[in-house]
Amino acid sequence: MIGYNPKDWWKLIFAFHRSDTFRFLLPGIIGVSVYTGVVAYIENDIFHASFKNTTVVHSLVGFVLSMLLVFRTNTAYDRWWEGRRLWGSFVNNSRNLALKLNAFLPKDNPARETLRILITNYIFAAKEHLRSGVHPKKLIPLGQYDADFYSNKKHIPNNIMGAIYQEINNLHTQRIISGDRLILLNYELQSFSDNLGGCERIKRTPIPYAYSLFLKKVIFLYVFTMPIGFVIEFKYWAIPIVAIIFYVFASIEVIAEEIEDPFGTDANDLPTDSIYETIKENLEEIL
Amino acid sequence: MIGYNPKDWWKLIFAFHRSDTFRFLLPGIIGVSVYTGVVAYIENDIFHASFKNTTVVHSLVGFVLSMLLVFRTNTAYDRWWEGRRLWGSFVNNSRNLALKLNAFLPKDNPARETLRILITNYIFAAKEHLRSGVHPKKLIPLGQYDADFYSNKKHIPNNIMGAIYQEINNLHTQRIISGDRLILLNYELQSFSDNLGGCERIKRTPIPYAYSLFLKKVIFLYVFTMPIGFVIEFKYWAIPIVAIIFYVFASIEVIAEEIEDPFGTDANDLPTDSIYETIKENLEEIL
Amino acid sequence: MIGYNPKDWWKLIFAFHRSDTFRFLLPGIIGVSVYTGVVAYIENDIFHASFKNTTVVHSLVGFVLSMLLVFRTNTAYDRWWEGRRLWGSFVNNSRNLALKLNAFLPKDNPARETLRILITNYIFAAKEHLRSGVHPKKLIPLGQYDADFYSNKKHIPNNIMGAIYQEINNLHTQRIISGDRLILLNYELQSFSDNLGGCERIKRTPIPYAYSLFLKKVIFLYVFTMPIGFVIEFKYWAIPIVAIIFYVFASIEVIAEEIEDPFGTDANDLPTDSIYETIKENLEEIL
Amino acid sequence: MIGYNPKDWWKLIFAFHRSDTFRFLLPGIIGVSVYTGVVAYIENDIFHASFKNTTVVHSLVGFVLSMLLVFRTNTAYDRWWEGRRLWGSFVNNSRNLALKLNAFLPKDNPARETLRILITNYIFAAKEHLRSGVHPKKLIPLGQYDADFYSNKKHIPNNIMGAIYQEINNLHTQRIISGDRLILLNYELQSFSDNLGGCERIKRTPIPYAYSLFLKKVIFLYVFTMPIGFVIEFKYWAIPIVAIIFYVFASIEVIAEEIEDPFGTDANDLPTDSIYETIKENLEEIL
Amino acid sequence: MIGYNPKDWWKLIFAFHRSDTFRFLLPGIIGVSVYTGVVAYIENDIFHASFKNTTVVHSLVGFVLSMLLVFRTNTAYDRWWEGRRLWGSFVNNSRNLALKLNAFLPKDNPARETLRILITNYIFAAKEHLRSGVHPKKLIPLGQYDADFYSNKKHIPNNIMGAIYQEINNLHTQRIISGDRLILLNYELQSFSDNLGGCERIKRTPIPYAYSLFLKKVIFLYVFTMPIGFVIEFKYWAIPIVAIIFYVFASIEVIAEEIEDPFGTDANDLPTDSIYETIKENLEEIL
Repeated sequence: MIGYNPKDWWKLIFAFHRSDTFRFLLPGIIGVSVYTGVVAYIENDIFHASFKNTTVVHSLVGFVLSMLLVFRTNTAYDRWWEGRRLWGSFVNNSRNLALKLNAFLPKDNPARETLRILITNYIFAAKEHLRSGVHPKKLIPLGQYDADFYSNKKHIPNNIMGAIYQEINNLHTQRIISGDRLILLNYELQSFSDNLGGCERIKRTPIPYAYSLFLKKVIFLYVFTMPIGFVIEFKYWAIPIVAIIFYVFASIEVIAEEIEDPFGTDANDLPTDSIYETIKENLEEIL
Repeated sequence: MIGYNPKDWWKLIFAFHRSDTFRFLLPGIIGVSVYTGVVAYIENDIFHASFKNTTVVHSLVGFVLSMLLVFRTNTAYDRWWEGRRLWGSFVNNSRNLALKLNAFLPKDNPARETLRILITNYIFAAKEHLRSGVHPKKLIPLGQYDADFYSNKKHIPNNIMGAIYQEINNLHTQRIISGDRLILLNYELQSFSDNLGGCERIKRTPIPYAYSLFLKKVIFLYVFTMPIGFVIEFKYWAIPIVAIIFYVFASIEVIAEEIEDPFGTDANDLPTDSIYETIKENLEEIL
Repeated sequence: MIGYNPKDWWKLIFAFHRSDTFRFLLPGIIGVSVYTGVVAYIENDIFHASFKNTTVVHSLVGFVLSMLLVFRTNTAYDRWWEGRRLWGSFVNNSRNLALKLNAFLPKDNPARETLRILITNYIFAAKEHLRSGVHPKKLIPLGQYDADFYSNKKHIPNNIMGAIYQEINNLHTQRIISGDRLILLNYELQSFSDNLGGCERIKRTPIPYAYSLFLKKVIFLYVFTMPIGFVIEFKYWAIPIVAIIFYVFASIEVIAEEIEDPFGTDANDLPTDSIYETIKENLEEIL
Repeated sequence: MIGYNPKDWWKLIFAFHRSDTFRFLLPGIIGVSVYTGVVAYIENDIFHASFKNTTVVHSLVGFVLSMLLVFRTNTAYDRWWEGRRLWGSFVNNSRNLALKLNAFLPKDNPARETLRILITNYIFAAKEHLRSGVHPKKLIPLGQYDADFYSNKKHIPNNIMGAIYQEINNLHTQRIISGDRLILLNYELQSFSDNLGGCERIKRTPIPYAYSLFLKKVIFLYVFTMPIGFVIEFKYWAIPIVAIIFYVFASIEVIAEEIEDPFGTDANDLPTDSIYETIKENLEEIL
Repeated sequence: MIGYNPKDWWKLIFAFHRSDTFRFLLPGIIGVSVYTGVVAYIENDIFHASFKNTTVVHSLVGFVLSMLLVFRTNTAYDRWWEGRRLWGSFVNNSRNLALKLNAFLPKDNPARETLRILITNYIFAAKEHLRSGVHPKKLIPLGQYDADFYSNKKHIPNNIMGAIYQEINNLHTQRIISGDRLILLNYELQSFSDNLGGCERIKRTPIPYAYSLFLKKVIFLYVFTMPIGFVIEFKYWAIPIVAIIFYVFASIEVIAEEIEDPFGTDANDLPTDSIYETIKENLEEIL
């Protein structure tokens, strides 16, 4: 995620950040401009065509297209924000779990460190699992939970969670944590897995294929039929007009695509690296 | 569900996938084109009719129709996404239940395998139950829970869940699982039935009949009155215009119909088969 | 609720089902047509009036009216879907409660039958309570819980729920159900009352009076001022135009009114009768 | 709240109820009409001004204004409906609490009456607290909980809730209610305070000042610049046109203002008085 | 937050509050006016340019821009309202926790005061933590929990919560609070951390960079190309027209920016100071 000041209008208007859709769409914009120029030349200078009121069709379709793009934007943003919410829940659960364990465990119990490291590793593994996969070597080793323990596992976060459950269960068997307190710890443990499952769901399920297909086809149809009518009314002025309309409509779709899978390392993705650091710091301070 | 790269614009624009609405609507598009051609011939070449500003009525109605189609799209997508959420919850619950059982049960207790198979069967049965029904032979048999056990039952997932409750209750009666731990297992068991109930609700309750009826009538009225005014202004150009507008409006309705019941095996349906495989693998790794 | 195939376009387009708004609005449509004809005759043939660009005002107001109608549609649909959700929750709770009771109670305990009948009666009473009221005679009598028990009660579902609580509490006092298990049963019992309360809320609280009043006034104003401007531009063609626009706008309001209280026996109401049958069957199979 | 039949169109269209925005806005409508008349006289009869296509600007701004008004309507309605939901939750919680207490407490325990009166008083106090404040004299006195007990308290509902917690805790200390059952009672007690807090939140937090300010300014700008362009095109017909548009736009804002704080005694407010009566009756029947 | 009467139209229309966007945008409005004047002079008086129907492009783009601005407004308002909800939850949790502690703790137990002060400090620290940071000196000192205790901590609210958990756990170890009662206290303690985590999430995650960038670019493009077409049709009248349109569109973005981070001390921010006072008073009255 990029840190930025949303109130700095001039900087944002003239910024051409690498994640700016303008940069990404530039070849498309040039292509559309050239195409419009050619249509304008053919219709006006060769055929001298003329018909009336030709923009009405694009108004009609433009309306429904705008609404579909806003639907697209809403769903993409909802996924992004749900992803943020799930990672916020990781922060909350880590804190609550640490606060409870701190209150329940004697100051010198070695389970404190074990659980702190395991939770930290769980968050790290969750973060990497949602990207390209977890390197067991990058996890903090501790006692039996070393790189060997983690290798050969298909779903590393699940295995770490298994270890956490096992450790807490042992504390219960050793009567260090009472049954009532075990119930108090349940919500956070359960929620960790639920959050990760939620993130996997967002990552693996883009918007239905039919909508992705349909929206791109309609944008294409819309922009490539536009010059036919517009060059008669606006002559060569149609070139910037069509280019701007293409830029606006295609950008909305492009941003939605980028936002929709928010766990990577792109400019608009969620700051899962820094959330991990926050959790690590919180755990070290509390536990 | 189709795996696809949402960022590959050209491929998506020119793809004519079997699930593409263009293919499905092709007969309709041809019909609308022929009809528009006939209207154009009659009005322009026979009656030489002329009136002014005739597109305004279609703008007015087009507006409210677009908004209704977006309402339709939103409700259909909400069902699809809720279905996905419920199946995501199956994944989470299976994991959490397995993690808890793994921590609670001794390593050599045969209930481990029994419960793993029962949960796997439950998910399989849920998946098939939401399609054409469950074949008892396709379930993994184990001890008393064989094909005979499952046959003659009306609602097989309920019966499997009954067996799971029974097994866990027996573990409690045998004092292997304490009362506090029984409380910890409750949430996941309950949630399995809630999820399946949610899926049944989505499957059995399409959008109210009145909306389905009304939307189709308005699209029909809209498209079939369109040529009357448009052929005067656009002559034979009205043919592609009306065809495109029909394609855009009808597609939105058609996609919504497809998305709204997401548990089948269509191109846009949820990947419940692969979710089942994921759950099976997770259970095998953990328990 | 009407069972229908949402993909059967022709049938839906030409169906004139008794719940179709077209049938309901027919007198209104005829009235509007006659009124428009009269206005057309007066303006065009008597006064020969003429002014320009008269449709712009109806575009402006049509826009805001469309958006209000979509707001209306959304709120009505939300109630309908929440009602469906609450009845889906009745199904889930009955199943979970039955599954738990089946695991907790010895096979020969008479409380099994008592509770099965009481839950079945509760759902039946809830269904009737949301319509015209419960006939005690229609409930399944069992031991002390016969028609006499139910008569003279103001709120019959509450009384049945009271009996269920009493029965389960007795099982706890008799040490058949332990304290931990009592906690496990709590969620479903509580949820039954919450669901019924939710349905009562939907039934008793239509959309605020001010919106109902305002929307009908604006539709009236809109449709009855429409011919004044339209007959100049479209002559007698204004008759079908105004009739269609009236049909489209008034239908949205009419459907919303029908959908908003979904517990009756109308064509678009929820299938609470068949949900009751499902619950009854489920309970008989499990318990 | 006004009871009304939403299907009685004619009555609603011609009703001029005291809560009708038409009545409230009448002075404004007259003012706008006079102003438009004056502008029409000056522009047409004095300056004989003329420019073209002047309605396009109002279309553009009218569009964004309509969308903001729908945003306003949605947020106001959401508050109203959330308020209704919270009061529905009061009904559900009272019922569940009464059902549980009925099952847990011996038939002759005086705590039954005490708790019934305290819960009834809590709902009454909540209702009054959300209006102008609670008169201790209006609460039902019982033993130590008389008018003196309630006077001198800043937040009376909190104090009643404190008494309820105290009573139930005493029952636990006296071993009449076991620890497990205490846990079962917790949800409802907690939810009472949460509901009241939710109502206080809705009451004390109107829509952000910036939106209220901005919307009123834009409606003002919109309506007062409208005659400048419209009188040229529509002559004195601009008077009813501008009056109608003012009526429609201002009404939406006015209704939203009325709906947004739903706990008073206005025509569109929630029927908290009759909900209180329902709760009182339910409690008397159950406990 | 500013207290205001939403029904006082005249005051709001003519108020130029320091938080009014008009004041903030004044330099921009003047700039846009001058720019439009220059364009008008060049096009009309120097080049005598003329083309037709030039407003249609701005209608098309204006439509999609309006919808994006409403999307922006919705997301900003949702954050603001979620923030309000979280602070409302602080109020509810403090009350419930105090009510429970009051019932559970003997009248003379010193833990009453300790916990009251700690909860009060937690809310104060949460409030300041969401602004510029917590000054340990401003917290109420009590016994070991004095300014020294709080200094050198990175995340002060977490440390206070740790102390609360510790105190309550000690009460449990001393058998003053039973295990069942400990479970009853869990929800509120957990919810405090969840609420603060939720506020941190809102504060640290503005709308995705891509949307902020894109919206500002489109508003800029829209307003700065507008005079090119408008001065031909409206001559020097284009100056107020473009200025008004700029004011309306830019205001929506500016308000959304202000609303989106609602924990500061701006005019539209949440009244966290007065909510803190309410909680403090409630706690003093109950505990």
